[in-house]
Amino acid sequence: MSNTTKPLAGVKVLDLTRVLVGPYCTMMLENLGADIIKVERPETGDDSRNFGPFFEDGEESAYFVSLNSGKRSIVLNLKEEEDLTTFKKLVQQVDILVENFRPGTMEKLGIGYETLKELNPKLIYAAASGFGHSGPDSQKAAYDMIVQAASGIMSITGHPEGPPVRVGVSIGDIVAGIFTATGVLAALYQRTVTGEGQKVDVAMLDCQVAILENAIARYMVEGEPPEPMGARHPSITPFQAFKAQDGWFVIAAGNDVLWAKLCEALEREDLVEDPRFKNNADRTENIDQLVEILEGELATKTVAEWQEILDEYGVPSSPINTVDKLFDDPQLAARNMLVNLEGYSEEMFVAGNPIKMSNLPEEESKPRAPKLGEHTEEIIAELLEE
Amino acid sequence: MSNTTKPLAGVKVLDLTRVLVGPYCTMMLENLGADIIKVERPETGDDSRNFGPFFEDGEESAYFVSLNSGKRSIVLNLKEEEDLTTFKKLVQQVDILVENFRPGTMEKLGIGYETLKELNPKLIYAAASGFGHSGPDSQKAAYDMIVQAASGIMSITGHPEGPPVRVGVSIGDIVAGIFTATGVLAALYQRTVTGEGQKVDVAMLDCQVAILENAIARYMVEGEPPEPMGARHPSITPFQAFKAQDGWFVIAAGNDVLWAKLCEALEREDLVEDPRFKNNADRTENIDQLVEILEGELATKTVAEWQEILDEYGVPSSPINTVDKLFDDPQLAARNMLVNLEGYSEEMFVAGNPIKMSNLPEEESKPRAPKLGEHTEEIIAELLEE
Repeated sequence: MSNTTKPLAGVKVLDLTRVLVGPYCTMMLENLGADIIKVERPETGDDSRNFGPFFEDGEESAYFVSLNSGKRSIVLNLKEEEDLTTFKKLVQQVDILVENFRPGTMEKLGIGYETLKELNPKLIYAAASGFGHSGPDSQKAAYDMIVQAASGIMSITGHPEGPPVRVGVSIGDIVAGIFTATGVLAALYQRTVTGEGQKVDVAMLDCQVAILENAIARYMVEGEPPEPMGARHPSITPFQAFKAQDGWFVIAAGNDVLWAKLCEALEREDLVEDPRFKNNADRTENIDQLVEILEGELATKTVAEWQEILDEYGVPSSPINTVDKLFDDPQLAARNMLVNLEGYSEEMFVAGNPIKMSNLPEEESKPRAPKLGEHTEEIIAELLEE
Repeated sequence: MSNTTKPLAGVKVLDLTRVLVGPYCTMMLENLGADIIKVERPETGDDSRNFGPFFEDGEESAYFVSLNSGKRSIVLNLKEEEDLTTFKKLVQQVDILVENFRPGTMEKLGIGYETLKELNPKLIYAAASGFGHSGPDSQKAAYDMIVQAASGIMSITGHPEGPPVRVGVSIGDIVAGIFTATGVLAALYQRTVTGEGQKVDVAMLDCQVAILENAIARYMVEGEPPEPMGARHPSITPFQAFKAQDGWFVIAAGNDVLWAKLCEALEREDLVEDPRFKNNADRTENIDQLVEILEGELATKTVAEWQEILDEYGVPSSPINTVDKLFDDPQLAARNMLVNLEGYSEEMFVAGNPIKMSNLPEEESKPRAPKLGEHTEEIIAELLEE
């Protein structure tokens, strides 16, 4: 096999997922070269086909196409005998099944893991759900907002004494989608050793707890739950957002050397020797005085001016970019992180694949998302009529 | 091989990582059963051994142990010939190498990927860095704060017109750690097909862009960059934090059925027929009026009281938990999401593994993190003197 075959070339995925957590998982597998067979219900298909915003004269959901590019769509009504039979035949032809139904739904349809395992013992069955396939809350519905609140993430995001803040992206779904893909790949590797498939069970709530770790460690030692800290780091100073003449930007002076460079850049070398700010612990203790002094200096120039000066001194800093600015970033362009979808009359850029691999060629565009049921006949002919 | 062998049993990882992004990646691989050989420099080891908060009478960093449980530590000075020779011999005995140095550092030490590939063509070489191993900013230092700002995540987190808000966990590092582990596993699978290793190159900035997707889609269609929306969902209503009598909590009424149930739970069935709130689009358009009405009702009872009522009506809701509350959650207990580390005199709970797999037995405790160089002789005897 040639070196440029994609890592998951030849791997077939039966994808029963809808909306975000599951489609994000299978999008990652598609990025890595797997063949994604998206099973959709008749008429409506994946709910997110109806989520705004829309483009192509209202014909296409930008939300849906950004998650489903390059997948193939087959329509099956899993509540009807004939289609269920087709589905079970497909299960015998694939490597992986991914679903994000509420736990128990697949069993009600007569296609739970225990049943499918009999049909295909090599099947890797991955389920992403809100609370997981075990435990007292297993049957409860979860949304991103619910797990952001329940997990503690919201309790440490925002300004002290301020109103609650949701993380502006759906990390409750997205992080669970990534963990699910990771579990699928670990199972796929193990299958090459044992010859057998297994079940992967990922809960959105669990995943939010898994990304908290520093906050849990702080609570264990300090005995008090951590609180929100606005835009600053809990224990490194100065490492936060500051106001310049024309707006906010961030400076991350992660150690004493960078602190000294920052003082030089500001022409305030006197601060390096100031006993209030000598080391990181001092600076963190006297943060209010420090911020007042720094903002006095930073107010004299614009973000762009400071950016240039701080770059010169090697002090990490960044503007707080809005999403449009990403399209002007030469680094993101060099990394192919915004790719256009083919086959639409309007431009539709989506995020690229962040996993760069030597056997995974970078492509400047990606295939469009499938129309509902577009590949029904093709898939049946290919997988079931050989 | 028995069914209960962990997915990555027998997989050896040479782990050169420090602080967060790399150690998070190898922690995931350890959770899945891989043998992690942590290579640390003499005297100080992983920088995070010196990061607070500390426990065990100041002997142990809670930050470090929460990321390095179950790994083995070998001390090598990669700037000295003898240790470099040992290192190169180890490279020939392992499956995977993970590093999170600034790009170019491994080459300066004479152990860049091109060199190591000659020594071990089956080696999977994974590099996690701030901006990646290509592009004009490749050599720049990045911290979590920098990529949160540069990627656009900060621009959509927080309250409209409010000061910037950093996501309260280091998602810049952590998400990149998860993506790196995913890339490693895809490469490990491909190696079973091709017999060859490859390089995996993951940038923190790229990963933040990859989790933005909905925001990019909105920008593409609307032409205006999305703005922060506090604690509400951009297009679903009511789906946000609300004030009850004793504090904030979240309600996620994701569709018209849940909206009707919420009205019932509040004994405000009149709102279901109110033309201002008939469907989701109406509710989103008239959100200010809706929030005023709902907060009027919600102010009459506590969060716990509403919780019970909304559970009864099946309306998704959650308190905004602080981290201490996780220890009282029966669901997280049932999922084994907080596990104690063995071998310390004090309790030290860390987040459990969110990837539940049928071949991965759940354990209620995990091994402690290694002392610096604790396994140097053991590893050399085991891998190099057979």
